[in-house]
Amino acid sequence: MTFAPDDNYFMNEALKEAQKAYDADEVPVGAVIVANNKIIARAHNLTERLTDVTAHAEMQAITAAANALGGKYLHECTLYVTLEPCPMCAGALNWSQITKIVYGASDGKRGYTLINQAMLHPKTSVVNGIEGAKCGEIVTKFFKEKRGK
Amino acid sequence: MTFAPDDNYFMNEALKEAQKAYDADEVPVGAVIVANNKIIARAHNLTERLTDVTAHAEMQAITAAANALGGKYLHECTLYVTLEPCPMCAGALNWSQITKIVYGASDGKRGYTLINQAMLHPKTSVVNGIEGAKCGEIVTKFFKEKRGK
Repeated sequence: MTFAPDDNYFMNEALKEAQKAYDADEVPVGAVIVANNKIIARAHNLTERLTDVTAHAEMQAITAAANALGGKYLHECTLYVTLEPCPMCAGALNWSQITKIVYGASDGKRGYTLINQAMLHPKTSVVNGIEGAKCGEIVTKFFKEKRGK
Repeated sequence: MTFAPDDNYFMNEALKEAQKAYDADEVPVGAVIVANNKIIARAHNLTERLTDVTAHAEMQAITAAANALGGKYLHECTLYVTLEPCPMCAGALNWSQITKIVYGASDGKRGYTLINQAMLHPKTSVVNGIEGAKCGEIVTKFFKEKRGK
């Protein structure tokens, strides 16, 4: 039987990236971009390390995927990201014309859906809640520990 | 008499960046970021050269200014950009907490104000229309020539 990776498999790969961010004391968000059932980009939040507010997991993944494909549009690609994208990342995803976005946990404070659900490209489909509990827990744990320091 | 640079002066510096983009066959948008009346970052759109939808003038300017300052927040900084920022750039500017944004021409197709005026940080002030005609003309000329090819 051939192994067929599904949404949960890829979200767990994104979670591995989130764990790397956590271990580096960054807000723990991770992302992978998949084309033809293969991961072509992996990234995690690096805003502190790079001293750069634009260094979200999604932004780096978009840049890396475009490099891998040799073209700036992410047609036939799926982004798996542990947390709902913020408006900056949603705007970038719109420009990329990515085919599908799967996110784990909703972001009730900074998620793009708070601004406008129509921020994404009209051809982009969205799924949410995949491994939502695990994706949310790592962020909650991070901020709880931060407050405790 | 000491030379006191004003909004028009800095917007013309941003226009020089837009011209560089134009000369490189990129959508001609340019930006500078100013702190204490000095330019600390200059950038122009490089989406084609870098094959990267995130390489807008503003995004590069934010990253460069943070590097120059050694911190990720652009407090006491002003962005001068020739065209109204798109939602991605507005989202990034929100994260940067930049103090002031001055843009030249409005973008009736992709400007952030079409999505939500409140995309920026509540402490960020906005001025528009500075050298608006010149800032708009270079974009109009670019797309007119593109269509003619």
